Amino acid sequence: VRLSILLFDGYTALDVVGGYEVLSRVPQVETELVASRKGVIAADTRRLGMTAYRDFSEVNSTDILYVPGGPGVEAALKDERLIAWVQQMYVFSKWNVSVCNGAAILGEAGILKGKVATTNWGWRDKVAQYGATITKARYHRDGNLVTGAGVSASIDTGLFLASLLASEQVARTIQLGIEYYPDPPFGNSSADEQPLPMREALLKFEKKSIGMLKQTKLAC
Amino acid sequence: VRLSILLFDGYTALDVVGGYEVLSRVPQVETELVASRKGVIAADTRRLGMTAYRDFSEVNSTDILYVPGGPGVEAALKDERLIAWVQQMYVFSKWNVSVCNGAAILGEAGILKGKVATTNWGWRDKVAQYGATITKARYHRDGNLVTGAGVSASIDTGLFLASLLASEQVARTIQLGIEYYPDPPFGNSSADEQPLPMREALLKFEKKSIGMLKQTKLAC
Repeated sequence: VRLSILLFDGYTALDVVGGYEVLSRVPQVETELVASRKGVIAADTRRLGMTAYRDFSEVNSTDILYVPGGPGVEAALKDERLIAWVQQMYVFSKWNVSVCNGAAILGEAGILKGKVATTNWGWRDKVAQYGATITKARYHRDGNLVTGAGVSASIDTGLFLASLLASEQVARTIQLGIEYYPDPPFGNSSADEQPLPMREALLKFEKKSIGMLKQTKLAC
Repeated sequence: VRLSILLFDGYTALDVVGGYEVLSRVPQVETELVASRKGVIAADTRRLGMTAYRDFSEVNSTDILYVPGGPGVEAALKDERLIAWVQQMYVFSKWNVSVCNGAAILGEAGILKGKVATTNWGWRDKVAQYGATITKARYHRDGNLVTGAGVSASIDTGLFLASLLASEQVARTIQLGIEYYPDPPFGNSSADEQPLPMREALLKFEKKSIGMLKQTKLAC
């Protein structure tokens, strides 16, 4: 089972790694990190880089397409080659997964039309414009589409998909392996329940991050 | 504030990225990934590589030392240069952080003597041998030492430390940013409450992983 995780400039690392850590441990899954070019692809903070060891030309089809999010999504949506590659994957993929605003990339590729999907709370309106009905769930399955909410929701989304790929028993064992018995220090109510000023401050910061990406590269 | 995250062959990616995603977003924190050599360092699955853009010779001191775990810890414990570097960091570091069995690396460096620490559930006996008193907490602070349990506990540990570095308000905002309102699909009881056969199967798998590391490199 081929799992192809898309990297693009300015992805959010935990969007990638939460799902990767779970799904790469499902028996028979062969994970690969794919980008438009081989080499180190910088995360949004410019302080972490992951290696894409396949480029688009080497991946003509896959079983599981996995699209993370991040401030880099904004530029990725305008990258015709990237969107065309996603469309190409969709022809044969058995599962299509997005985390956070990675859902917009699936949307731009035409994959969300008439589907129910979740995404980062700040991107719901944008993702809805692709013809999706938005659910506020942490993860959601609609046919062969599995969407997750923001960043750390990649872990929950991965565990849910692991149970579909293998079994609940396998998913539970991986959950034990990654010790996913979360205990957030400051409570566990949903993003929508957080104070409005905090949400507004964060949206402002995230907008600034998108602009920052254009001016910076990986620190090194 | 300098945050130096140690990479070594065979780390577990989520051990690194959970803490990184939180702490690199704390105002004033400058994050760097450090290893014995510059370049791509392969994670335990051999399916993901992150770039270390500083080597030990370039990092003579730091404010926050962050040590992840993984099956590669077994070999790292015998790496005298790595342990000496950790000891050197400890001289001036304001905070010393470990995730998972990364605690054993701090222990080997002599940092755990007389301290209370948590670690991966499979490594408690080993870490206790370094003179630490083991707590089964998900994260724990003892003076300038902050230890986390396995893998995904890196997120909770990072949020806890973020509140100490900045404020609870900052930590809560980062929690919203990474949407850490976890909802594990298969319940949320602790690792110790999982069935014994599952725990035994996992320990066997993890032992096998350590042996596997010696025979494989990053897929590419």
